[in-house]
Amino acid sequence: MEKIESLQNAKVREWTALHEKKERDRTGRFLIEGEHLIKEAASAGLVELVISDLEEIPFPGIRHVLAAPKVMKKLSANVSGAHLIAICRKPSYEAVSLHRLLLLDGIQDPGNLGTLIRTAVSFSFDGVWCSEDTCDFYNEKTIRSTQGALFHLPLIRTDLKELVPELHQQGVKVIATALDASIPFASLEASEKMAFVLGNEGQGVSAEIQKAADERIRIEMHGFESLNVAVAGGIVMYRFRAQ
Amino acid sequence: MEKIESLQNAKVREWTALHEKKERDRTGRFLIEGEHLIKEAASAGLVELVISDLEEIPFPGIRHVLAAPKVMKKLSANVSGAHLIAICRKPSYEAVSLHRLLLLDGIQDPGNLGTLIRTAVSFSFDGVWCSEDTCDFYNEKTIRSTQGALFHLPLIRTDLKELVPELHQQGVKVIATALDASIPFASLEASEKMAFVLGNEGQGVSAEIQKAADERIRIEMHGFESLNVAVAGGIVMYRFRAQ
Repeated sequence: MEKIESLQNAKVREWTALHEKKERDRTGRFLIEGEHLIKEAASAGLVELVISDLEEIPFPGIRHVLAAPKVMKKLSANVSGAHLIAICRKPSYEAVSLHRLLLLDGIQDPGNLGTLIRTAVSFSFDGVWCSEDTCDFYNEKTIRSTQGALFHLPLIRTDLKELVPELHQQGVKVIATALDASIPFASLEASEKMAFVLGNEGQGVSAEIQKAADERIRIEMHGFESLNVAVAGGIVMYRFRAQ
Repeated sequence: MEKIESLQNAKVREWTALHEKKERDRTGRFLIEGEHLIKEAASAGLVELVISDLEEIPFPGIRHVLAAPKVMKKLSANVSGAHLIAICRKPSYEAVSLHRLLLLDGIQDPGNLGTLIRTAVSFSFDGVWCSEDTCDFYNEKTIRSTQGALFHLPLIRTDLKELVPELHQQGVKVIATALDASIPFASLEASEKMAFVLGNEGQGVSAEIQKAADERIRIEMHGFESLNVAVAGGIVMYRFRAQ
């Protein structure tokens, strides 16, 4: 079995570069850590290679490279290192059903992005579309927050300003969360095809997308009037979950 | 005006120690940073002192100590330092209304704890009770995630096993989130006084508290069957928000 001992090894440098978004974009590859996430990615057929300092790995049929502990520490996003790291390829998606969609307009926090993806999968949403300025799907913190859910639904990066008119043509009702000039969430009725837009943690959904949406809703609050975007997404997706 | 230049100053050592939970518990004091949080704490009458490297601070009538930038950096929880840091005292609470309560059983992540507190305030809950093994309310990350909400409702650390029977005596219905032997959340009916229990990120609500609860509910999912605890709390608190 191949064994890598040196931090100077060309492959180690290549893999370490995957901590950077631009290298993930260029290569279409990303890193994950730990048995649970690797199992989820393997079940989606996305794992190319597992790097480990263990002689035996719990993933039959997947290519395994043995590496020295110092190499594992270098590749890990955790201070304490990791025993199992995988190189995955980004999935490509077939035609997506348009029954229940989540649109994210400029989410900045990888933990919020990951939690929103996890919630979308749990409530059987059909896909997540993100604006170009939303943080990276394949950031380690995003992946960890999804708990592996990101391997289970289409994640698409796009220009939302172009997407909304396309969704309208397909009969999808687009609903933006907003504070002003909006209807209470409880009064929103179900439609066959719905897309919900959540916005940036500080600014909310951009004015342009709010204007293009069919409805603007606000979640009814009587106190502090402040909700984390992943919590707002959970409230909206739970009520309109796919059955 | 008093000015502190040295990192060896006894007060700097005393304030820096407030980054540790045991020192916060011993002194009943905690640190916060930034104009927004300090304003929220000042409006609740909790700020004892503002430390700043600015000659003028935007908090009239509050004691101000001038400090050198290196002192500010030492006191700050942020790598980039801070211009405004306050020493606050933990609030004490009068009798709490028991209409809508949140009980937290072993929450470990400060971000989740802070987000749950923020959501509880936004949906006009009357108070948050935490088990002894829930992480600290006054951890910097918890405070930041509350967005200042923690100054607006009672936060009480207690033994939940003793609290639940007391709540029963007061006519409060206790509802635990659970996976097994539970009813769908949608079938739960409103009661005048309700307390919702959310559990540890990995283990959920402890078996003992689940058993003591009047109802065990599960949030209906059809996909990945995995929700972040702050998202689950948002879904529950939204539906039973105080009007």
